[in-house]
Amino acid sequence: MNSAIIVAAGRGTRMGPNVDKLFLEIGGIPIVGHTWQRFDGVAEIDEILIVTREDLRPAFEELAIELDVQLPWRLVLGGAARQDSVANGLDALAPATEIVAIQDGARPCTTKALIRATMDAARESGAAVAAMRVTDTVKESADGRTIARHLDREKLWAVQTPQTFRVSIIRRALATARERGLVLTDDTAACELIGQPVRLVESATPNPKVTVPADLPYVELLLREQG
Amino acid sequence: MNSAIIVAAGRGTRMGPNVDKLFLEIGGIPIVGHTWQRFDGVAEIDEILIVTREDLRPAFEELAIELDVQLPWRLVLGGAARQDSVANGLDALAPATEIVAIQDGARPCTTKALIRATMDAARESGAAVAAMRVTDTVKESADGRTIARHLDREKLWAVQTPQTFRVSIIRRALATARERGLVLTDDTAACELIGQPVRLVESATPNPKVTVPADLPYVELLLREQG
Repeated sequence: MNSAIIVAAGRGTRMGPNVDKLFLEIGGIPIVGHTWQRFDGVAEIDEILIVTREDLRPAFEELAIELDVQLPWRLVLGGAARQDSVANGLDALAPATEIVAIQDGARPCTTKALIRATMDAARESGAAVAAMRVTDTVKESADGRTIARHLDREKLWAVQTPQTFRVSIIRRALATARERGLVLTDDTAACELIGQPVRLVESATPNPKVTVPADLPYVELLLREQG
Repeated sequence: MNSAIIVAAGRGTRMGPNVDKLFLEIGGIPIVGHTWQRFDGVAEIDEILIVTREDLRPAFEELAIELDVQLPWRLVLGGAARQDSVANGLDALAPATEIVAIQDGARPCTTKALIRATMDAARESGAAVAAMRVTDTVKESADGRTIARHLDREKLWAVQTPQTFRVSIIRRALATARERGLVLTDDTAACELIGQPVRLVESATPNPKVTVPADLPYVELLLREQG
């Protein structure tokens, strides 16, 4: 059995006060609705868990009807930090789940092909992540004022979501992070702690996260191009 | 005296055969024309050198008339690699030039405020570069297949252009690179060789380089937003 966890619990404070970025609309559909539709269209997925806040429950129930979603879905309450929300999602998975794809709700351009490719790679090797080669020249700065070190661009990858795992592996990885009291920015970082290699799955098209209002027109453009 | 060098010599092979990306038009003006206009609007600049290929000379002469450029400008022949083109530009600078801003011709969204800010920083500290904080989670991979190392995003900056220098400093830095037979991807990397610190000047708005055809709609959107 394969499941998807869509993380949609954050308040997105960088979007300004009283704005829930996940419900900003593009083409009449909220951002998180686009994300949901992508996963809803992958036949290999058996269930979708949406991790969110209690106050958004009615909005998601309405959205499911509006989008006429096909795959079974459930709401799960999120935690204080992203890591807690992911943990709550993992706790709520159906016991038979073998592969889980964890997705940022605010990443609506993720393609079905990309979702499938991370699932295949995770089945094969245990852990996989959607990623793009970094095309910018990247420097390290300790103080944010001057360049400290040049990084070799050829080796750099920007990781996105889905981050997809064999369930037993991501559970063990996050438990280890919790035991050590670590707060991690992404789920693949936890795999490093248990020596689990993470496969890079290259995104064929841009797959950005909506973080600030200025990201919206670009994401709108991408969604229009993808059709 | 302050000068700008616009590097416009590359063939942009990633754009496909027989396409000179610099002359792809956005809003009726070639990409390199937008770039030129930004520098043409900075009163503190005394002269603009455009480093390009012999076969593009007529196109640039026509463009100057079309754009009705105000600042004095000259064409300089480029070299085989970017580094050679920059060197040719530096060799051609007026002897009185103290500060030089080196710009990718294919980066048309660079604002006048950003150009000025890098000039001020270079005057103060010798070397400065336009840059943006990296918002993606970045991983290092040795083989391009699996993640080798997590990088601390807080310390990462994507550098752009202008890269702006006191002329004496960039000349010494590039001469050192040449002596050591190094091919560098950007001019600030040469400063590292001579122990010259490079100041980061944060771009307030996106400042991407047009590299593949898919970049065009995004850049068009940015130019429209900037007005």
